[in-house]
Amino acid sequence: METQVKQIGIVGGTGYTGVELLRMLAVHPEVEVNCLTSRSEAGKLVGALYPWLHAYSDVMFEAPSADALSACDLVFYATPNQIAMHDAPALVEAGCRVIDLAADFRFSDLSVWEHTYQATHAAPELAKEAVYGLPECYRETIANASLVGNPGCYPTASILALLPLVEAGLLSDTQVILDGKSGASGAGRNARTDLIVAEASDNFHAYGADGHRHGPEIADQLTHIAGQSIEVTFVPHLLPMIRGIEVTAYVSTSMPIEEVRDLYQTRYASEPLVSVVDSGVHPETRWVRGSNRCTIGLYSQRPGQLIVSSVIDNLVKGAAGQAIQNMNLMLGLDETLAVPMHALSP
Amino acid sequence: METQVKQIGIVGGTGYTGVELLRMLAVHPEVEVNCLTSRSEAGKLVGALYPWLHAYSDVMFEAPSADALSACDLVFYATPNQIAMHDAPALVEAGCRVIDLAADFRFSDLSVWEHTYQATHAAPELAKEAVYGLPECYRETIANASLVGNPGCYPTASILALLPLVEAGLLSDTQVILDGKSGASGAGRNARTDLIVAEASDNFHAYGADGHRHGPEIADQLTHIAGQSIEVTFVPHLLPMIRGIEVTAYVSTSMPIEEVRDLYQTRYASEPLVSVVDSGVHPETRWVRGSNRCTIGLYSQRPGQLIVSSVIDNLVKGAAGQAIQNMNLMLGLDETLAVPMHALSP
Amino acid sequence: METQVKQIGIVGGTGYTGVELLRMLAVHPEVEVNCLTSRSEAGKLVGALYPWLHAYSDVMFEAPSADALSACDLVFYATPNQIAMHDAPALVEAGCRVIDLAADFRFSDLSVWEHTYQATHAAPELAKEAVYGLPECYRETIANASLVGNPGCYPTASILALLPLVEAGLLSDTQVILDGKSGASGAGRNARTDLIVAEASDNFHAYGADGHRHGPEIADQLTHIAGQSIEVTFVPHLLPMIRGIEVTAYVSTSMPIEEVRDLYQTRYASEPLVSVVDSGVHPETRWVRGSNRCTIGLYSQRPGQLIVSSVIDNLVKGAAGQAIQNMNLMLGLDETLAVPMHALSP
Amino acid sequence: METQVKQIGIVGGTGYTGVELLRMLAVHPEVEVNCLTSRSEAGKLVGALYPWLHAYSDVMFEAPSADALSACDLVFYATPNQIAMHDAPALVEAGCRVIDLAADFRFSDLSVWEHTYQATHAAPELAKEAVYGLPECYRETIANASLVGNPGCYPTASILALLPLVEAGLLSDTQVILDGKSGASGAGRNARTDLIVAEASDNFHAYGADGHRHGPEIADQLTHIAGQSIEVTFVPHLLPMIRGIEVTAYVSTSMPIEEVRDLYQTRYASEPLVSVVDSGVHPETRWVRGSNRCTIGLYSQRPGQLIVSSVIDNLVKGAAGQAIQNMNLMLGLDETLAVPMHALSP
Repeated sequence: METQVKQIGIVGGTGYTGVELLRMLAVHPEVEVNCLTSRSEAGKLVGALYPWLHAYSDVMFEAPSADALSACDLVFYATPNQIAMHDAPALVEAGCRVIDLAADFRFSDLSVWEHTYQATHAAPELAKEAVYGLPECYRETIANASLVGNPGCYPTASILALLPLVEAGLLSDTQVILDGKSGASGAGRNARTDLIVAEASDNFHAYGADGHRHGPEIADQLTHIAGQSIEVTFVPHLLPMIRGIEVTAYVSTSMPIEEVRDLYQTRYASEPLVSVVDSGVHPETRWVRGSNRCTIGLYSQRPGQLIVSSVIDNLVKGAAGQAIQNMNLMLGLDETLAVPMHALSP
Repeated sequence: METQVKQIGIVGGTGYTGVELLRMLAVHPEVEVNCLTSRSEAGKLVGALYPWLHAYSDVMFEAPSADALSACDLVFYATPNQIAMHDAPALVEAGCRVIDLAADFRFSDLSVWEHTYQATHAAPELAKEAVYGLPECYRETIANASLVGNPGCYPTASILALLPLVEAGLLSDTQVILDGKSGASGAGRNARTDLIVAEASDNFHAYGADGHRHGPEIADQLTHIAGQSIEVTFVPHLLPMIRGIEVTAYVSTSMPIEEVRDLYQTRYASEPLVSVVDSGVHPETRWVRGSNRCTIGLYSQRPGQLIVSSVIDNLVKGAAGQAIQNMNLMLGLDETLAVPMHALSP
Repeated sequence: METQVKQIGIVGGTGYTGVELLRMLAVHPEVEVNCLTSRSEAGKLVGALYPWLHAYSDVMFEAPSADALSACDLVFYATPNQIAMHDAPALVEAGCRVIDLAADFRFSDLSVWEHTYQATHAAPELAKEAVYGLPECYRETIANASLVGNPGCYPTASILALLPLVEAGLLSDTQVILDGKSGASGAGRNARTDLIVAEASDNFHAYGADGHRHGPEIADQLTHIAGQSIEVTFVPHLLPMIRGIEVTAYVSTSMPIEEVRDLYQTRYASEPLVSVVDSGVHPETRWVRGSNRCTIGLYSQRPGQLIVSSVIDNLVKGAAGQAIQNMNLMLGLDETLAVPMHALSP
Repeated sequence: METQVKQIGIVGGTGYTGVELLRMLAVHPEVEVNCLTSRSEAGKLVGALYPWLHAYSDVMFEAPSADALSACDLVFYATPNQIAMHDAPALVEAGCRVIDLAADFRFSDLSVWEHTYQATHAAPELAKEAVYGLPECYRETIANASLVGNPGCYPTASILALLPLVEAGLLSDTQVILDGKSGASGAGRNARTDLIVAEASDNFHAYGADGHRHGPEIADQLTHIAGQSIEVTFVPHLLPMIRGIEVTAYVSTSMPIEEVRDLYQTRYASEPLVSVVDSGVHPETRWVRGSNRCTIGLYSQRPGQLIVSSVIDNLVKGAAGQAIQNMNLMLGLDETLAVPMHALSP
């Protein structure tokens, strides 16, 4: 008996996360994209916008249609914030499962979402049922979820950096400092002067240092995992490069560094996409370029202190790759099917 | 009566700090380079190694000679660590003034130097007399110094980031976290595989996260300025670009952010080469590319917390430019003579 | 008797060529900028847009005013094409001298301009009187000109690459092939998706390969200099970097390569801003980064063939630096006053 | 009946082409790497050198052993020039098939090889039997070859740029000009000062302009294909980026550009890894980043002239990817098995 190939829809397929979804789905043996929508580019061929996606050269972007989408087994929302919260309820109602790559369904505490995004949520009930799509935390509930809120890029790198410690209740101070750095693809495919090569290459700076919306997302999750309030200070910075996020976390714990390393290696031993490097080794973003892996290093400069360096590809483990991982779990497939396991390096 | 043009020597002129010294001295009206030495490149023309330094095309690198150097009014050591500590005493004895761009004369507490560099200091008495070459702190003593230890690149950005607060005794916790990022020129003109474009461009990673030798230098100075022990956690990272350092500092203070900003603006108002940006603005390394300026931004995400972002050009304010500034002070000249005031941007 | 400081106006000071003009004029001892205009940014401070131009922090961009401009000794048009041709006649009439950094006054043959820019020229009489601002060719006429058309970036690199050969009538074939490459600042400060780091860094491609408007400008000048029609094939390419143009020229000549090198070295011996490198050396764009120099290398792979590699900084010798050089000539000042002579490298 | 999994050896697996072979072979269902050698790194784990190749983390580099290698079905030489010519004869004798990624077996005319590489060939008889591994030209002979000389990176981009025209005898002049540009990974994993980020990023220059050894390789092949002598002028340039080659070719033909485009599209219609873009489109290196594709654009600025822009990833279609393509042909497998079909972009 043959497995039925699953039908997949992508809403907003023209941004970088949409392109990455297509790159991965092109080699997936168990699914096919049968609905690809873009409000702005409807009527154009994928090949005209993304000449390197040869598998989809002749596929046309369509205007979003509720009927076409609800006929899919699963739909990705690769749209800006506050799109999926309007559209997902009808799809879920129609039996279609949904993964939102934006922030609408990522918060366990909706009041935090409303404060962070300065809006009223359009689907508060559904938001409560939604599962945060971090397989390393929520693998089983993701598998059964109707709706998954795919984690943000900085939150993925940050939460995986602290997960074993927080789960084990080993933070000796609830204050956490996260210094994040991201490649420019994190800002999306936007024609902004501050992103052009003449301004953003050979350059580096912080942004959002008074508060960035990924801070509350990280705090919400860590608090949820810890079972107590965790305060997060998060400062992001823009790197003069395309892909990659590194987060350096500064936390307090009384556990000695070698024991912490054992704890992490044990916790992640069976995780297919998280690696913990040896003492003295520093993870590099190029080790995960194009791949769905998170690689973590652990350090300490004085007793009581833990420093964690965590790297991911912001478009893969930080977005589209993790979404495919979630899709595989939801469809009962091998979690790593079509998920890039190796980096492109050099 | 004419001012006599001063005679300048440069030892180790073939590294990046040596090249930058030449770039600036080429337009200095009151000094001339009359002794340029390099052990490895003796006999070669500057023009052969650095075709863009047209003012020195036909100058030849000489082997270092104590006689030639001691005839200079002032000598720069643009050499690796632990060279100047052997040579400087004789020069100082001979009445020649010395600026060491390496770390030999930067520590107020020599035991910290010895622990950090794992060596015995060759000139401990002279080291005690040496002045730390940060004009914003020690302008008057620099002017009269025989020997100046020019600050490290990360320490310059870090100390200027915290100076007003530390001077005023406003740190409410003596623990300071400094997350530093540097362009690849900070690693010098070294043929290392990990620095080639194929490995280090489009890449980012921490290094020395278990302890980097600039940490103790920063702690030594902050402790000296504060009059109490300051504990520094410092993690450097390598940026995929040529020039520029950004340090994000996380400290505790009960002073509200707006008062902190006033404090900084007042403290630096008369400094020709330090700027404090307005609320909400984030300094960019390109704003100081090629210039001798330090630009500082101040932020806070919760009461009791201060976040500082500080940028410099690691080869200018972090090395050669600050050295010229010190030279001007020592020779009684206008402090900013021949010092680059404007960045090259884009 | 003191020289009177000259009054300078800049129209369109917010683009990259405008910023570069300000950077250089800030250190010019004989002129001052007394009128800085921008239609789009009128009312803003220079410091808000260009925080690194400390000398002009508190200067405000004004709306362009014919009165204010015509009171200047000399006005730079750092505007898009087809602005100066409307405004310059009145200024010239009023006795103000004008340097246009756009293409309106660069063509000796106006029909070529009209065909290339697909427009009717608004000041054809003035265009005939205008001098092409390449000092290496037209130093004396520039000095006396009312109106100078400042050469394009690719044309500057290309014409200097071939000038000695063309002047001497040594081309054995009137077909010239020019393969040009430019850093992204050549596209200006424009918010274009194809220029953002995520798309244009770590990337390279040709553009305008069926014909780019700098081709006719080069052909027009070479034809004028040669006194016979020269056919130019010019293909530009976009480099994943900020500044720098390299042009590789492929031409035919029966003169042996060593004699050609002698010819070039003799021709450029007294030029302050053109260098010819030795056999086997290849000029690098970083050797001229931020400087007003053109550096040229000469090669051959077979008898009868000459290959020339020519590098400039597109914003300096290819735009603002050459304009300052022209201004100095027009005002009777030392040609290299305030002109950057040394590159910023590394 | 099951297909037997083929045994593969890699000699010199620690360079960039070796790493890329491993990346691709990791997902190949019909082969396994059972012998991985490196003289310099013998005894080290792949995971220590290349932490991103998780499939091979625990594989150890061995010293090369003729016995172990000759037990393989096929061996890749990812070594410097003039290694394979000494070792391959014994392997071929033992019935093992060999693909050399260096230049030893690429020349149809050995005297050209000897002149170009200034050496005497160690296996001249075998060199005559070797097949040039360009599947688009020699698919059938590759399938039956004992020994394949895998083409150089610039030659692959250059020959594919001209193949349809040369095969059809449509060059109206036997002089061909090729202006090539390559990312820095083309220089290999070498600790060279001129390749470090501080020198080679934000920089561009020609090299080998008096003659580069890929020129004769291209001329040898084009001459062989054309059946008449083709003279090649080839000037390579170094790009400030990691991967990608672009070659702009300038040739003469009397065929109109639209007919040339038809010719190319017809010639490459059934090629799985060569694309010809539409009029006015310029191929970008990022469209082939990490993929095995060659993308070609065609232009003309005047009658009788053809300009071709051709892009490849130098490490994939220019090296390891093409080698895998050849391996598949030699082993009777689907030519594109495990060959990357889609680029990683952005």
